Amino acid sequence: MKNYIKHDNWNIIEEGFHVENNRISESLFSLGNGRMGQRGNFEEKYSGDSMQGTYIAGVYYPDKTRVGWWKNGYPEYFAKVLNAPSWIGINVEIEGEELDLNTAEVIDFKRVLNMKDGFLYRTFTARLASGKEVKVEATRFCSIVDDEAGVIKYAITPLNFSGNIKFTPTVDADVVNEDSNYDEKFWTEAAKGNETGFAYVTAEVRKTLFQVTTAMDYAITVAGAEQALNPTLAEAEKFVSQTVEVSAKEGEEVVFTKYAAVVSSLNHDKAALVDAAKAELAKIKAKGFDAMLAEQAEAWASKWELSDIKIEGDVAAQQGIRFNIFQLNQTYTGEDARLNIGPKGFTGEKYGGVTYWDTEAYCVPFYLCTADPKVARNLLVYRHNHLERAIENAGKLGFDNGAALYPMVTINGEECHNEWEITFEEIHRNGSMSYAIYNYIRHTQDYAYLAEYGFDVLLGVARFWAQRVHFSEHKNQYVMHGVTGPNEFDNNVDNNWYTNYIASWSMRYAQEAVDYVKANHADRYAELVAKNNFNEAEETAKWKDIVDNMYYPYDEKRDIFLQADNFLDKEQILVKDLDPKHLPLVHNWSWDRILRSNFIKQADVLQGLYFFEHEFDVPTLKRNYDFYEPRTVHESSLSPCVHSIIAARIGDMERAYEFYLRTSRLDLDNYNEDSQDGCHTTSMAGTWMSVIEGFGGKRVIDEQLSLEPQIPSEWEAYTFKIVWRGATMDIRVDHENVTIKNNTDVAAEMLVYGAKQELAGNGELVIPVKK
Amino acid sequence: MKNYIKHDNWNIIEEGFHVENNRISESLFSLGNGRMGQRGNFEEKYSGDSMQGTYIAGVYYPDKTRVGWWKNGYPEYFAKVLNAPSWIGINVEIEGEELDLNTAEVIDFKRVLNMKDGFLYRTFTARLASGKEVKVEATRFCSIVDDEAGVIKYAITPLNFSGNIKFTPTVDADVVNEDSNYDEKFWTEAAKGNETGFAYVTAEVRKTLFQVTTAMDYAITVAGAEQALNPTLAEAEKFVSQTVEVSAKEGEEVVFTKYAAVVSSLNHDKAALVDAAKAELAKIKAKGFDAMLAEQAEAWASKWELSDIKIEGDVAAQQGIRFNIFQLNQTYTGEDARLNIGPKGFTGEKYGGVTYWDTEAYCVPFYLCTADPKVARNLLVYRHNHLERAIENAGKLGFDNGAALYPMVTINGEECHNEWEITFEEIHRNGSMSYAIYNYIRHTQDYAYLAEYGFDVLLGVARFWAQRVHFSEHKNQYVMHGVTGPNEFDNNVDNNWYTNYIASWSMRYAQEAVDYVKANHADRYAELVAKNNFNEAEETAKWKDIVDNMYYPYDEKRDIFLQADNFLDKEQILVKDLDPKHLPLVHNWSWDRILRSNFIKQADVLQGLYFFEHEFDVPTLKRNYDFYEPRTVHESSLSPCVHSIIAARIGDMERAYEFYLRTSRLDLDNYNEDSQDGCHTTSMAGTWMSVIEGFGGKRVIDEQLSLEPQIPSEWEAYTFKIVWRGATMDIRVDHENVTIKNNTDVAAEMLVYGAKQELAGNGELVIPVKK
Repeated sequence: MKNYIKHDNWNIIEEGFHVENNRISESLFSLGNGRMGQRGNFEEKYSGDSMQGTYIAGVYYPDKTRVGWWKNGYPEYFAKVLNAPSWIGINVEIEGEELDLNTAEVIDFKRVLNMKDGFLYRTFTARLASGKEVKVEATRFCSIVDDEAGVIKYAITPLNFSGNIKFTPTVDADVVNEDSNYDEKFWTEAAKGNETGFAYVTAEVRKTLFQVTTAMDYAITVAGAEQALNPTLAEAEKFVSQTVEVSAKEGEEVVFTKYAAVVSSLNHDKAALVDAAKAELAKIKAKGFDAMLAEQAEAWASKWELSDIKIEGDVAAQQGIRFNIFQLNQTYTGEDARLNIGPKGFTGEKYGGVTYWDTEAYCVPFYLCTADPKVARNLLVYRHNHLERAIENAGKLGFDNGAALYPMVTINGEECHNEWEITFEEIHRNGSMSYAIYNYIRHTQDYAYLAEYGFDVLLGVARFWAQRVHFSEHKNQYVMHGVTGPNEFDNNVDNNWYTNYIASWSMRYAQEAVDYVKANHADRYAELVAKNNFNEAEETAKWKDIVDNMYYPYDEKRDIFLQADNFLDKEQILVKDLDPKHLPLVHNWSWDRILRSNFIKQADVLQGLYFFEHEFDVPTLKRNYDFYEPRTVHESSLSPCVHSIIAARIGDMERAYEFYLRTSRLDLDNYNEDSQDGCHTTSMAGTWMSVIEGFGGKRVIDEQLSLEPQIPSEWEAYTFKIVWRGATMDIRVDHENVTIKNNTDVAAEMLVYGAKQELAGNGELVIPVKK
Repeated sequence: MKNYIKHDNWNIIEEGFHVENNRISESLFSLGNGRMGQRGNFEEKYSGDSMQGTYIAGVYYPDKTRVGWWKNGYPEYFAKVLNAPSWIGINVEIEGEELDLNTAEVIDFKRVLNMKDGFLYRTFTARLASGKEVKVEATRFCSIVDDEAGVIKYAITPLNFSGNIKFTPTVDADVVNEDSNYDEKFWTEAAKGNETGFAYVTAEVRKTLFQVTTAMDYAITVAGAEQALNPTLAEAEKFVSQTVEVSAKEGEEVVFTKYAAVVSSLNHDKAALVDAAKAELAKIKAKGFDAMLAEQAEAWASKWELSDIKIEGDVAAQQGIRFNIFQLNQTYTGEDARLNIGPKGFTGEKYGGVTYWDTEAYCVPFYLCTADPKVARNLLVYRHNHLERAIENAGKLGFDNGAALYPMVTINGEECHNEWEITFEEIHRNGSMSYAIYNYIRHTQDYAYLAEYGFDVLLGVARFWAQRVHFSEHKNQYVMHGVTGPNEFDNNVDNNWYTNYIASWSMRYAQEAVDYVKANHADRYAELVAKNNFNEAEETAKWKDIVDNMYYPYDEKRDIFLQADNFLDKEQILVKDLDPKHLPLVHNWSWDRILRSNFIKQADVLQGLYFFEHEFDVPTLKRNYDFYEPRTVHESSLSPCVHSIIAARIGDMERAYEFYLRTSRLDLDNYNEDSQDGCHTTSMAGTWMSVIEGFGGKRVIDEQLSLEPQIPSEWEAYTFKIVWRGATMDIRVDHENVTIKNNTDVAAEMLVYGAKQELAGNGELVIPVKK
């Protein structure tokens, strides 16, 4: 654990240059606007250890699969959101000496991620070899208002000399991915141009042929006076730069403002890219830096208005939760159904920046409660748009008649992952596609979605399950063999309880969708039946037969669901009895030893009880929690949140708080020793869930909002927000009361501690908190 | 199936140049002498499709592991017997035109592998673009008498012209492996020399630093007259050549004889390599080609004397079995305990040319019956020499106290394989190490081996099993989770019957070894106890407890052993009911579908019944055979032989013969469509087993030789040889009698059809054959 980040309510702060943690800082100080993002790299040249990262959502490279031993069915490539042309470079030369924090003496240094207003600020004083000292203040952001633009204000003051300063702003498309499978470069040059006022590179991704034009313009003031530009132009392959020189006086600030436009063929005709970049540049330069920053702060204020969580009496917790919410909002804005949320967002290369079931299980709940419903809806439409590919994917594995298997990892709907035990077997993910639709509709009552997009997906998923189970003559029940549950610490098991359950539930829910669409959208239903070649009578009868006769592994003695067949045959050891030197198991044990053990990576049976809590009573939750949690090592960032929520539900607030702590500062405190690779963006939604669903006890019961707030003894109060059917509410919980304030003039209904409450527009409810 | 090889009792013949099958022919026409070998590549330049392959036993490269997703415990490299410097090149230029069968018109062409005498002969007539026609006859072999030498007689006759012919013999160390993980070259140049009479390259393998000196000399005769040499010397990196030109007359034969020495640092000091090569070359050149060939034929006659199988009335079967025996004898001679038998021998790159459990399960039985016992003994010593590494390997997986896990794939004792389900889980291989010792001793009664080498290995293996099982409170028995049985079509199963059985047997046999060594070699026993820190009382008590309380999956209803837990829960489908278009499954089904199915790749329960037949009765064999064989797709070359033997044992000679057919011409007829990659060398021993143990009914019962011959109706007669305690016997079986002839003056005892028989030195027994 690296505990070098200063605690603060609204800012992430590094004081002093922690050079040994630079890659971690680069992850933590990442910026994004949903469309593009980047790691917290320096503008000026840095010759020390760094992982350069600029990313453009949806622009990917299909990196040829690397595998030890090929298995039939493996995908041909792993789609990577690739490291994109960098627009941030501003090299600085002072009287012939290059400014480089790796070689200069760094006298003071501070990096601040201002989460309230959405920008990155960095200041330092450096002493060069010559003894010259300069102070630098750099402010940078990716605009969420102009989402194809980024801007940097780079202010430099000579402290003990007067002299010439050269600025060399660059556009550099000659970038690489550190995780390239075959050490290839992914970009080629399509075009470039370099004139005063407009320098650009249009780079093309190999194979996918996406084009991105990255363009720059800039302005300089010395002591507030705008300078005329007379740059020296330079070019290289996939690279343009301009060098300007100003004369600076001791104590006088020189401000270099760099404007950048990043436009891609995802949103523009290729032929129009350069013009689009030029127009964007002109627009933002006309606005100017200060106006852009003001707009940025305003836009972020709106986001916080819907999604903030305020914690009183615990700055570390406050900072942690805001960091998580900030990263989620930086990563995905919900405006484009072609985009999704990579496990690392725009903060690193790992996992390829593509879509996992994390989106449906963790991110959809977050956006459902903190944004306009269209945001979550776009996440559903993303999967709908991939349905044909999911059907093809299932076809590759031998399924037919429209059965759909959504990929474990994807960017364009095609499977990218290549471990058979995951790719082919971790199929529970398919159920979460149905679950997300169910979740969306119970939140929004947007039943029309079922007719428009939902039905197809639910049908494809149900068809998959109906083919994936088989009837065991021996058991006289339906069974499902050869799966990997959410607990990836067991592979190729038979009858994973969670998978069997979500499979069965998916078929039940598909039946509900059939009934609803048939009854309420008869014409559309006829269309859907024809389009999908759906034999209602036969297929739904099959679903019912499976639902009625599904086998669920169960232990009578303990009255618990068994994670999978033979689970109790394993040597039963509790995590507390394990010598801590073995942890984390994934680093210390061989894979077979992990598989043979009863240790669980992340919620599995409990994930099912979390999803389907309404179908179980609290004693059942408790029995299963009491059995499984002590066997769980939580070596997935997605594990503690589910445990926190269930612990709160069964009244164990102490454990709930412990689990919460484990997730909320995961990246800031680098718990898993991997923040250098990027942040755990999708699991951040799980942290949010711990507060709202765990402590806040938020549920949707019979399509009604229900709250059962509790408060950890460590906190004075906390306030969260919920967007619910047009109303936005602040729910403040302290040790006396739950105070629910309606910030809109839309009235709201809800259950609080099971009792129905009416909340008038702009009204307030005060209810004593449950102890 | 490519059926282009002509049937012949003693030769493998390709008539006409089957250019589309060239890679297959290159595999089939491979040569070897146990020390080195090569594919049937052409001497002269060939610009068509070809896989060049020269191999030197024991000289390997640790190719960095390539893997999609790293798992803790994976090895760092895959050791490959690498493509070695080529000594066969003789480029030919005729009046300025290069001889290249890819560009010339090939008028006739014939390749013959003469298995009786051990050489490769190739003749062709080619018409060059100019219209010039030449006849070529090339004869080549790797000497088994001078096992660091190879020789080529390359005779060329101008048919329709007189003119100059240039010969350019080469030594080429600038070679690559097609299967290099990272497209690297494995060799660097250490030295080279080029003078008339002695040209060489000393090449060094990267990382392992093995050095190999490959040297050549040559002679030319025109119309029988030796020519003076006045070569033009040429060199390049890792390459030397000499060009000589002779004037040839129409109809007069020009004979170019190339002598090559291949010496390696495995057998010589690096500093002495060049001298060793020079001495070897001088020796063989002094002998001359004809004398070398005569010695070669004589040496092969001795090999055939011990190992031939003669089949009367079926030329295809005769050719098939001799091809198998020939390849086995080419690959391993048993003179060097550092060497072993790669699955492809010297015929291709696939599988890296390293050691699998094939050696213990299939090859040891072959060499035990067809060679001096020291040959099989050296195979055992090979594993003994790797014991420390096997203990380290087990340590990497978390085992301790001297537990040894022999690798799935190795060359130097370290694990090379990197699929977790195989590397970490296909641990039954460990039992075959013990089984091979048991098999050797029951054949030879060399009990001293136990004290000298066997004890350590048996102890390490038994210790591994004792730690690998665990006691299931739930079952109240010992179980073994997370294994892959010989049937690799199911992975990570619990309680694979075969693995549980061989584990238990290994502990029983280790106990026997303890008892024997303790009783007969008390001093050595004390030494072994101390060296291995062996706590006899405690450890053997543990073994006994496991042996007495091991769980074996079993189906009462069918009275059969279950391959693994849940096997009967699988959907039960027979291979005969499967649409043949699905076969082979490994090419047509995704991996998860294969795993979920009840289809079996190769003998698993039946492998156990084969190994431990003496512990079961024939009805048990039959019940299990009748259940499993119809579910077996035999997609391993190691499967049909075991089924053939068991079918013969339970009296189903028709099926036994069918299975035999499937194995004996596997490569010649390219059944599996993969002969281009090389021959299935280790499975060839299985074919031999089908005849001797299947049809011949050869067993060792209470350390006595036992025969129960039967004859397939398709054959007139067959004769096999058995080396047994100093005697060598011919056993001829026809439809009337079994005739056993003792070729030595050592008397032999045996059971024939269960009745004890005495066979005097040079005597003969005639016994009516069992119908």
